[in-house]
Amino acid sequence: MPLTSEQRQEIEAQRLSPATTSRPTVPALEEVLFAPFELLDHGFVRVVDYMGDDGAIVQAARVSYGRGTKKVSEDSGLIRYLMRHRHSTPFEMCEIKFHVKLPVFVARQWIRHRMANVNEYSARYSILDREFYLPSLEQVAAQSQSNRQGRADALPAEKAEEVLDLLRQDASRCYDHYEQMLDPEGIGLARELARMNLTLNTYTQWYWKIDLHNFLHFLSLRADPHAQYEIRVYAEAMIEILRRWVPVTCAAFEEYRLGAFNFSAGMLRVLRCQLAGEAVTQADSGLSRREWDEMQAVLKAD
Amino acid sequence: MPLTSEQRQEIEAQRLSPATTSRPTVPALEEVLFAPFELLDHGFVRVVDYMGDDGAIVQAARVSYGRGTKKVSEDSGLIRYLMRHRHSTPFEMCEIKFHVKLPVFVARQWIRHRMANVNEYSARYSILDREFYLPSLEQVAAQSQSNRQGRADALPAEKAEEVLDLLRQDASRCYDHYEQMLDPEGIGLARELARMNLTLNTYTQWYWKIDLHNFLHFLSLRADPHAQYEIRVYAEAMIEILRRWVPVTCAAFEEYRLGAFNFSAGMLRVLRCQLAGEAVTQADSGLSRREWDEMQAVLKAD
Amino acid sequence: MPLTSEQRQEIEAQRLSPATTSRPTVPALEEVLFAPFELLDHGFVRVVDYMGDDGAIVQAARVSYGRGTKKVSEDSGLIRYLMRHRHSTPFEMCEIKFHVKLPVFVARQWIRHRMANVNEYSARYSILDREFYLPSLEQVAAQSQSNRQGRADALPAEKAEEVLDLLRQDASRCYDHYEQMLDPEGIGLARELARMNLTLNTYTQWYWKIDLHNFLHFLSLRADPHAQYEIRVYAEAMIEILRRWVPVTCAAFEEYRLGAFNFSAGMLRVLRCQLAGEAVTQADSGLSRREWDEMQAVLKAD
Amino acid sequence: MPLTSEQRQEIEAQRLSPATTSRPTVPALEEVLFAPFELLDHGFVRVVDYMGDDGAIVQAARVSYGRGTKKVSEDSGLIRYLMRHRHSTPFEMCEIKFHVKLPVFVARQWIRHRMANVNEYSARYSILDREFYLPSLEQVAAQSQSNRQGRADALPAEKAEEVLDLLRQDASRCYDHYEQMLDPEGIGLARELARMNLTLNTYTQWYWKIDLHNFLHFLSLRADPHAQYEIRVYAEAMIEILRRWVPVTCAAFEEYRLGAFNFSAGMLRVLRCQLAGEAVTQADSGLSRREWDEMQAVLKAD
Repeated sequence: MPLTSEQRQEIEAQRLSPATTSRPTVPALEEVLFAPFELLDHGFVRVVDYMGDDGAIVQAARVSYGRGTKKVSEDSGLIRYLMRHRHSTPFEMCEIKFHVKLPVFVARQWIRHRMANVNEYSARYSILDREFYLPSLEQVAAQSQSNRQGRADALPAEKAEEVLDLLRQDASRCYDHYEQMLDPEGIGLARELARMNLTLNTYTQWYWKIDLHNFLHFLSLRADPHAQYEIRVYAEAMIEILRRWVPVTCAAFEEYRLGAFNFSAGMLRVLRCQLAGEAVTQADSGLSRREWDEMQAVLKAD
Repeated sequence: MPLTSEQRQEIEAQRLSPATTSRPTVPALEEVLFAPFELLDHGFVRVVDYMGDDGAIVQAARVSYGRGTKKVSEDSGLIRYLMRHRHSTPFEMCEIKFHVKLPVFVARQWIRHRMANVNEYSARYSILDREFYLPSLEQVAAQSQSNRQGRADALPAEKAEEVLDLLRQDASRCYDHYEQMLDPEGIGLARELARMNLTLNTYTQWYWKIDLHNFLHFLSLRADPHAQYEIRVYAEAMIEILRRWVPVTCAAFEEYRLGAFNFSAGMLRVLRCQLAGEAVTQADSGLSRREWDEMQAVLKAD
Repeated sequence: MPLTSEQRQEIEAQRLSPATTSRPTVPALEEVLFAPFELLDHGFVRVVDYMGDDGAIVQAARVSYGRGTKKVSEDSGLIRYLMRHRHSTPFEMCEIKFHVKLPVFVARQWIRHRMANVNEYSARYSILDREFYLPSLEQVAAQSQSNRQGRADALPAEKAEEVLDLLRQDASRCYDHYEQMLDPEGIGLARELARMNLTLNTYTQWYWKIDLHNFLHFLSLRADPHAQYEIRVYAEAMIEILRRWVPVTCAAFEEYRLGAFNFSAGMLRVLRCQLAGEAVTQADSGLSRREWDEMQAVLKAD
Repeated sequence: MPLTSEQRQEIEAQRLSPATTSRPTVPALEEVLFAPFELLDHGFVRVVDYMGDDGAIVQAARVSYGRGTKKVSEDSGLIRYLMRHRHSTPFEMCEIKFHVKLPVFVARQWIRHRMANVNEYSARYSILDREFYLPSLEQVAAQSQSNRQGRADALPAEKAEEVLDLLRQDASRCYDHYEQMLDPEGIGLARELARMNLTLNTYTQWYWKIDLHNFLHFLSLRADPHAQYEIRVYAEAMIEILRRWVPVTCAAFEEYRLGAFNFSAGMLRVLRCQLAGEAVTQADSGLSRREWDEMQAVLKAD
């Protein structure tokens, strides 16, 4: 269970006395404000604040004085146009802030997105909780042979249990020694040193704030099937949050980014031949085997 | 008058049906939300949205679950501590969005602050209004001799009038020809070309969004006495907005940034001698004339 | 002529005593180092420094200790892979620095690329030269009716001459008055004020430094046929510089970015039908007229 | 020993055939190019490339055509002026690239500096070496009581040995199991999963590139006495590299940043009283105990 009852109370307390505002407000997002979406075994993501809505994108793109009197269909058309032509600045006019709890090895991938604001829980200043990520059985997967940085099918149950035992024992023992080294009645080691004994599946947490343009970029990379499963579950949960927050933008994002495919100059040449009725094989396509396969996969997908 | 009555109506319409939110809300800022602070002869700055408050800084610094049960005095102490030790990330957790109308030559200085989001009114897409900046008489100042990039005292009234006449006539004529070149019944020149005939005092406008950390940096540079007057008036108005929004942060900013002074290693050596009762002159201080003067000015100021 | 003979001498002097370095060095780029590529009527772009080469991208992607013993074909394959999968960080490991002279209205578009370093010539500190952009006759074009932010065909010669006369006279007169206001024997106005009388086609100049990843992004937007002609000529010249500097990256960029096309989810559905032999019309494609036209244009292009 | 002989050979090979360049070149930095500065027990930092020198800062600040004919003393004065007045853009015109080997918990602090380019060794793609950081005996320090995020004196030797034993055993066992889980003949777990079993003192490495302005900011924070020792040793080594690269800038940095102190508005009030001969105590100073102590420390330091 990722949250204590005290933490849940603190979260609930924020909903008790809502305020009145003239700012753009999104009821569908207010509904889930502060509520943790639980992920992995101890993680969560929860929205703690937001700025703007679909209308704010339109308003900024038009540099208008008011919320605009244009029709909904025109606003939607403009957002689709902006997304299609990769106009990034109007999307930067919206901002969202999350509180995220996640394993350290996931945090290390996540932090590579530099165009965001982060405050991480400090293990120099405070003591980390005894919480570490253990994959579910079906996620304990073999090294992929075809993709050097991916995973293949789940390991047989016996091997998977062996992995989980090792992970559990090592993380536990390391945490025991972390506590032992910290104990002010015992060794009394500095926190900034003791933390180095923890394993990379230890959970950390942070406040993370990002504008909508960079958020979409994050989602397009981290919700991708090639992203590591453990970060992808966060990205997928956040796409559902995105849908509540800016539904028109979310739909355009799925149409022009998530569901789209970039055809290279070489692929376009192949495509033109195929549409003209010519048979083209990989051998004479000029494409690498991998490019050819990716292109065929996209053209056959439904 | 910087706004038409139609624009004022659009602005007012946004206040009519306030919403309910659980987000941090700042009544003192809500009071002036959307309202234009008029600046120079046709410019303004108005807040169109904001995220966070003083409490949000504390919440992020502590990575806490709720708004916190700590006392106000502790929150204030933490904010002062963060400001004093230049901890920037908690201040990045707040965000503010402005609509600004400003002369192009001011916009060119302003845009150098890259850590912000901007949507500018497009003169490729639309026609700019006939509005250009003319300084007030007392701002028509001579070139400073001591500061190569500053201005000295106001020019004599006669010369100042001559300047204003030249500025007014040139801007007007250029705008007349801009319209003439654009006229679809006449020349019909592309907007993206016609605009190059406008003078640099023509007004433009934009939506500008920035996080609180970078906003403070902007203000510290642009509210500085060495900043050009025409951008300083914007910065000064924005400090008053800052005070409404995050009063504790604003006070700490004035204490540790605006009202502070950085003593170099050499200045510290001089200071230690002086406090020990030694007389030090510029000649034997090791400081340049300019550094010496700046230091003395700070130590004599009240 | 954009450069004086004194400026040319200063530029030449930098080539006189070359140094020895163990850094990655690119002879084809050294050949044109410092040399101005003249653009428009008074503009130029010239490379003043660079860091890295194609090999540096590979080296960083592999986090290797040396320059690598891999074959050229493997390096090329890796660069193509990185480009295709939008791995941006290895490309950030190269950097290039330019000195650019360009009209102010072009500079205002250019500066929107925030992930770059800029030092602009200061008109607060110095006096700008009497140089302003006048389009060549064939570039004096009508407003496009189909594209609100573009230009159509060239205007008839007579109208174009009228435009050029207006531009020339207004810029000249504004500059005359700029000088008159600055004259220390006459009015003696502060430079920071006088500059506001100049027109937006006045030339400015800056040092501009950018990493290769962001440079490619800049080029993909500004060498695009929809970019304004006056900035596109700079982007096109810079692509030739790119080709000298990092030829493998340049080829991959042309294959996977410049020559590529992004098919939306809807376009992919249409494509699958067409490849299956079904006739699809715009009406039943689910695509907007504009999307349909763009897609057809790409599929018909050779 | 942080480097294998094969790695040393790869490094040496880069020096063998130096090239000729017209770019700004710094012999004192070329001398140590590629050479690892060994730090901690297995770490290092080495310069792999650089762009610019002290002269490049001046050249950009002046937007000049050549390397300039100004005197050395004028260049030095300009750099000091730019540093003193926090003009950041000319310093952005220089760039340096490092290859760094460092423990993961240090990497996690380091990466918070977002204005840099990074390529880290991928533990999804490759297997990490059996190398983890163990502090030297005198660095195994107690938790500070006065500074919640710092360390106090070294622990007694017996306790320190106990700490080192725990760290060594846990890191070793975790690494053993990492290898066991990876073994393709045994479990064959995916690398992206197995890595989570490693402890935070495991060494990683990356290519890290940064402009001089942001580099100075990094150094001012990480060479600070309050920075954690394990990152401070890197910053201190890099200051020596800085001194070789841009000696004038380095001296100005030490004068106006590292050796300087920021007096708050309240501290300035106290200072004025003291210089006027008044006795001021903390109680009536208006300063907090901590501010008072810091101020006194600075004024007494020699």
